[in-house]
Amino acid sequence: MNKAPKVLAFDVFGTVVDWHGSIAAEVTRLGLPVDPDAFATAWRQGYRPAMARVRSGELPWTKIDDLHHMILIDVLKAFKVHSLSENQIQHLNLVWHRLNPWPEAVEGLHKLKSQFTIVTLSNGNMGLLADMAKNAGLPWDLILSAEVFRHYKPDPETYLGVADIFNLTAVEVMLVAAHKDDLEAAHACGLQTAFIERPLEFGKNHLRNDLHVEQFTNYHAKDFLDLARQLGISDPDQH
Amino acid sequence: MNKAPKVLAFDVFGTVVDWHGSIAAEVTRLGLPVDPDAFATAWRQGYRPAMARVRSGELPWTKIDDLHHMILIDVLKAFKVHSLSENQIQHLNLVWHRLNPWPEAVEGLHKLKSQFTIVTLSNGNMGLLADMAKNAGLPWDLILSAEVFRHYKPDPETYLGVADIFNLTAVEVMLVAAHKDDLEAAHACGLQTAFIERPLEFGKNHLRNDLHVEQFTNYHAKDFLDLARQLGISDPDQH
Repeated sequence: MNKAPKVLAFDVFGTVVDWHGSIAAEVTRLGLPVDPDAFATAWRQGYRPAMARVRSGELPWTKIDDLHHMILIDVLKAFKVHSLSENQIQHLNLVWHRLNPWPEAVEGLHKLKSQFTIVTLSNGNMGLLADMAKNAGLPWDLILSAEVFRHYKPDPETYLGVADIFNLTAVEVMLVAAHKDDLEAAHACGLQTAFIERPLEFGKNHLRNDLHVEQFTNYHAKDFLDLARQLGISDPDQH
Repeated sequence: MNKAPKVLAFDVFGTVVDWHGSIAAEVTRLGLPVDPDAFATAWRQGYRPAMARVRSGELPWTKIDDLHHMILIDVLKAFKVHSLSENQIQHLNLVWHRLNPWPEAVEGLHKLKSQFTIVTLSNGNMGLLADMAKNAGLPWDLILSAEVFRHYKPDPETYLGVADIFNLTAVEVMLVAAHKDDLEAAHACGLQTAFIERPLEFGKNHLRNDLHVEQFTNYHAKDFLDLARQLGISDPDQH
């Protein structure tokens, strides 16, 4: 058994905030003539290929805001949406700055913050993460991003970068994420890992079906409150 | 008159926290056989020359934690302190992570945060600034540091870097600082500027005597509450 970590580093999209539900709701609010579920899924699906072009060096360093915009243009075309002005497209693109947290996330983060230093480790850019935190009340001790390290996850520079920022060894940092590939890469760098289930990340029509326990995860939790309990943070309601 | 800024970027050492008083108190607590006032002043005086060696390229990129440690070793020698173990020296070096805010600073930051995005722009490293914020309750929306930009202030990359992070123009960012050279450099980059007086920054034996209004400052305030009033944030006590 490893010693308790000192810093918890959180993946954000899907782990802390519900990107699928937030985007589907925004598209519905805008009255776009599309299936909101399919639209949200398509926008997110462009993300990995776009990041891969940056990671391979095909594109120079590009902020997620700009990648999201590139993908959005393609998605609007694919869904035959031609009614939005450039300003409306800009505003829609910034929905990623306004994503809603999962229902227990803010309470869970406050509990975890009482005992650990809690930071983000997201491929989202700093401005996006700061806007999101201010909007949703996410109480980060420090916002860290691929933008700081000039490498996107799962490059090792990101995971090891968190340890370096705090002058810690890798095992003193724990990645908290709903994505097993992210956790596996962090584990390979020597970090501790906590999987969060988030079965609804891709919407209720695409329930996550990969919820079994893995060798490379130190903790496996239903949500942040469950993780806090497993890490020994007592629940005041139980006293 | 410029439009109101969107982001307030704060210098930290001396502007938000009282480094001189905090270090003098720590030295007194440790019972070191030195004049606490002179010791605090000497430690801080090593800071600019050390940073200049990084800015000129003589030293590679070096975190402030490591610069502080280099300087501390010299200062302990100069003050003929030989009683500290390496662990005690390490702990003393981290006093910069535990500096106390000026009396009105936390309340003032909360007020300013209600209307603006508030961020740090400090030469202190990210881990230092995160520890300080957690310890002192500083409610930053985002912690930014020379470490993110790989340039120390007053290099333009730092001031313009803040605007870039938020996709803003320079004039939409305001630097808040107790140091006129910092403000002058930010002004030259097109930022708005607010001077905060902090007459006690260097201790009561070395009162700041350079408090007159300058052409390159848009605001000149006694403290953060005064700045909040000047920026039109109403004081609930006055209702």
